[in-house]
Amino acid sequence: MVEQAILHLQDSQYCYATGGNAVEIMLRTGARDAFEAVELIYGSKYDYYLVQRRVAMNKRFSDGLYDYYTVSLTLSDVRLIYIFALKENGKTYYFSEDGLTEKYDFAFAYYNAFQFPYINAADVMQDVKWMHSAVFYEIFVERFCRGDFVKDDAYIDLKWGEIPTPKSFAGGDLAGIVDKLDYLKDLGVSALYLTPIFQSVSNHKYDISDYYTVDKQFGDNRTFKRLVEEAHARGIRVVLDAVFNHCSEHSEQFRDVVKNGKKSPYFDWFIIRGDAIDTEAGNYECFGACKYMPKFNTSNSDVQKFLLDVATHWIEKYDIDGWRLDVSDEVSHDFWRAFRKSVKAAKPDCVILGENWHDSAPFLRGDQFDGIMNYALTKACLDYFVNGAFTATDFANKLSALYVRNNKTANGMMLNLLDSHDTHRFYTLADKNADKLACALAVVFMHTGAPCVYYGTEVLTEGGYDPDCRRTMDWDDGRENIRPLLRALADLRRSPEIEDGAIAFGTQGELFILDRIRDGVLRLYVNATDKAVAVRDEGETLLAHNYRNGKLGSNGFLVVRRTL
Amino acid sequence: MVEQAILHLQDSQYCYATGGNAVEIMLRTGARDAFEAVELIYGSKYDYYLVQRRVAMNKRFSDGLYDYYTVSLTLSDVRLIYIFALKENGKTYYFSEDGLTEKYDFAFAYYNAFQFPYINAADVMQDVKWMHSAVFYEIFVERFCRGDFVKDDAYIDLKWGEIPTPKSFAGGDLAGIVDKLDYLKDLGVSALYLTPIFQSVSNHKYDISDYYTVDKQFGDNRTFKRLVEEAHARGIRVVLDAVFNHCSEHSEQFRDVVKNGKKSPYFDWFIIRGDAIDTEAGNYECFGACKYMPKFNTSNSDVQKFLLDVATHWIEKYDIDGWRLDVSDEVSHDFWRAFRKSVKAAKPDCVILGENWHDSAPFLRGDQFDGIMNYALTKACLDYFVNGAFTATDFANKLSALYVRNNKTANGMMLNLLDSHDTHRFYTLADKNADKLACALAVVFMHTGAPCVYYGTEVLTEGGYDPDCRRTMDWDDGRENIRPLLRALADLRRSPEIEDGAIAFGTQGELFILDRIRDGVLRLYVNATDKAVAVRDEGETLLAHNYRNGKLGSNGFLVVRRTL
Repeated sequence: MVEQAILHLQDSQYCYATGGNAVEIMLRTGARDAFEAVELIYGSKYDYYLVQRRVAMNKRFSDGLYDYYTVSLTLSDVRLIYIFALKENGKTYYFSEDGLTEKYDFAFAYYNAFQFPYINAADVMQDVKWMHSAVFYEIFVERFCRGDFVKDDAYIDLKWGEIPTPKSFAGGDLAGIVDKLDYLKDLGVSALYLTPIFQSVSNHKYDISDYYTVDKQFGDNRTFKRLVEEAHARGIRVVLDAVFNHCSEHSEQFRDVVKNGKKSPYFDWFIIRGDAIDTEAGNYECFGACKYMPKFNTSNSDVQKFLLDVATHWIEKYDIDGWRLDVSDEVSHDFWRAFRKSVKAAKPDCVILGENWHDSAPFLRGDQFDGIMNYALTKACLDYFVNGAFTATDFANKLSALYVRNNKTANGMMLNLLDSHDTHRFYTLADKNADKLACALAVVFMHTGAPCVYYGTEVLTEGGYDPDCRRTMDWDDGRENIRPLLRALADLRRSPEIEDGAIAFGTQGELFILDRIRDGVLRLYVNATDKAVAVRDEGETLLAHNYRNGKLGSNGFLVVRRTL
Repeated sequence: MVEQAILHLQDSQYCYATGGNAVEIMLRTGARDAFEAVELIYGSKYDYYLVQRRVAMNKRFSDGLYDYYTVSLTLSDVRLIYIFALKENGKTYYFSEDGLTEKYDFAFAYYNAFQFPYINAADVMQDVKWMHSAVFYEIFVERFCRGDFVKDDAYIDLKWGEIPTPKSFAGGDLAGIVDKLDYLKDLGVSALYLTPIFQSVSNHKYDISDYYTVDKQFGDNRTFKRLVEEAHARGIRVVLDAVFNHCSEHSEQFRDVVKNGKKSPYFDWFIIRGDAIDTEAGNYECFGACKYMPKFNTSNSDVQKFLLDVATHWIEKYDIDGWRLDVSDEVSHDFWRAFRKSVKAAKPDCVILGENWHDSAPFLRGDQFDGIMNYALTKACLDYFVNGAFTATDFANKLSALYVRNNKTANGMMLNLLDSHDTHRFYTLADKNADKLACALAVVFMHTGAPCVYYGTEVLTEGGYDPDCRRTMDWDDGRENIRPLLRALADLRRSPEIEDGAIAFGTQGELFILDRIRDGVLRLYVNATDKAVAVRDEGETLLAHNYRNGKLGSNGFLVVRRTL
């Protein structure tokens, strides 16, 4: 075996509680190693030297480089201590904090065994169950639909349907979203993620000047109240965009600092080099290189209080169902911990979704976010379906590698997306191949976590990088669309296997396979090759795309159910 | 190279900030791999695709299985993004979130590079600088010294000098410690760690019934006030034992629950199966199997408030300098985060030391503890000096493996001990070989973090497991002792290399070497073999034990200083 490949990290996605007496354990080994058995030898902390239990671990994931063995435990004593036993060529090796050894003395386990010392309720990551079957739809509010034709529309400078520039205004608003709620419900959507709606001079409104007021271009606070009520009446949840990393240069607080420098009570709300704002030199921290977006000093307790009050205000007064956190990885863990406590106290199933593009395990341990925008999955789908960089095996390996980054509770609350207001549209990158889009959608709809469909995907909207990915929605009824496919995939998400099943990734020849396993198995076959491939499966066909006479065509997929 | 050996964990001891613009980065590789170069390719998050900087990483540690390369960065833009480059046989490989690749496209780094997204002040682990040169002395209060001969001593049932049983009372008290402060100062001690002093029926007092009152066997609150004042007057700090995992069955709160069951306001302060305490069945969580020590439910906010008030009370009213946290690994992270905030707000350099016996990285990231009782180092010293399980190379490897478990800030605040009230005495395990004890003490005194000498070590006190390791202190002046050695080691700790130097572990033939490196190098040579070994070093000899004519005798050590 490759000793150096073996990894276990205590108190991480390799060992965590899922309930009052339930623990999940994972061990990583080299992928090319063949073990006769991998076992967990576990017990209770204070009598482990006397009593040890053994349980087999099963290979659940492989990413080509490593294999991942897991086991679920239900404990009577929640003070868990454990080591691993690996059997190879008839010989047993032990793996503890001291690494791999040929002998293990349980009398000294208190020095070097692994442990999960106690399951404290306060540390167990809580599940937001509605995420398991949710279907999200992201709306870039300015471009989705105009509903209010009474408002002062002198600001509108882009004709609906024309290509936007970075500073275009086309007139989309909240009333327009209310008008389309039946349309969205019919599409299978169960949750909206809205880009920012608060007062701001820009079309995207990621530079907020007043966190308590809906921007008048979009309506007013009453319009938003109505939107939430009407959405809830249709079983659709509403998630808002929390832009808490930075605000607008037009915010009351920043303007006060510009005016009064160190004398401003808000001076320490920002991160300023020197005693006064020098707008020319830009001597303050901001988002990216955008000097109009000064960064909050979230290490300041007054800033924390201000933002936490905003967070709970929109939950308590407007009953929103979640916050998507803008640039969340640049804000402190300390802030997000306080944020979570406030948000979950106000509404326990209010979902918290970070905009973290990278591996984010430290944010996803139960004390900060529920899930993140799963851009790593986006990239994997692009590499498989669009870039030609992945075989089916590569794709299965990559999805396995991404899955084991986090615990299964967090994996169940990921926001899985193919594109957003911050990327090219997947359909455009895929050279307008709707079959590739269909297959990629099947993957994100079948995956753990909730799929998030970017507005316009259903009518094959094109779009390059910002601002092109923010075109106006085409409401022409006659336009080519994939609405039936989205409806069918949305229906699929109410399957028990998807609501509550384990996940596995694999291949069958050149086909990629994704399984969701509960009492039965829901299996997705995908053919991303350029030729037809035969599929033999005795299960019940639930959904098919480019599937004829037992063959999956190029960029076709098939979903079958098998009972165990 | 062994690809499977390569490891980097973002936002961990492999990448962390040490200040407003300072970041430490570490990469793990296979120990038998020879690279021409290992480089960090880093930049600023928002223009990394355009501008990348390269810096060489240096091999700083090796544990026999893995090598660890590190680099320290000082950033102008604190939004760090990076990958690694490994050069082998003239070829360059890149290591990113996507693993090892032969090519790397910086245009897509926003998807798969590593990052440290922003250095937020609130997340940077703070240093307690006095720990760097501190010399701790642990006192088991009941057995150290009796100073009060007026108190009601009817409870005393053990004659001073006789071997204790689990329930013996010998009469040690706080007045006795005050009496010995000059003695301790003369020994080089700069911090006391006292086992619990609050009201309790036991001799160890780990079952506390009143957290606001010093146990009358030990004196009263005024005696303790005087102890702190007198200690501070001598430059000696005082650290108390925070028994916050559990209390005594005699505590007011537990008694109320026993009496009133579910009607008690304290019912949820404990973890009870059923609606009432059944003392026979023991239907409540406790420490170990000790039903007289009911476990607190620290997930309860009232319990949190109660314990946090205790924690700050003894800081604010009595000016203590730290808390050692009993059974800290069984208490929630959530509680310790709140504890840290309260304690550090009351006194920023009040040290927080967990009683965690195992790898504790999740507690040592800046939001919970400063350091832990370093029992893993204890075990390594036993394996090298006592058990014959380690060669010098094994010992150097193990100390390296332990060091890379944590960031360097935490490593500077470890409590390094050879024994305690919870272990056999090192001297006894070492078959009363004072030379072995001397060498092991040299290691813990030279190591990063603070050494903690268990009372009586200086007079070669013997002791097996509890209660034997809790014998009364022998104050006979004529007794064989190693006080001069301890004084000399304590002097050494004021060296700039130890106060503020890096650490490295190695060997020279059969000798173990520990270096502390700043402008110069302080080098410790240890000979744990059974024969004399020649040492050639051109540095200035600062301290020597069993060193004659250029040779280190068996279990001898030598400390030299070399200027760079």
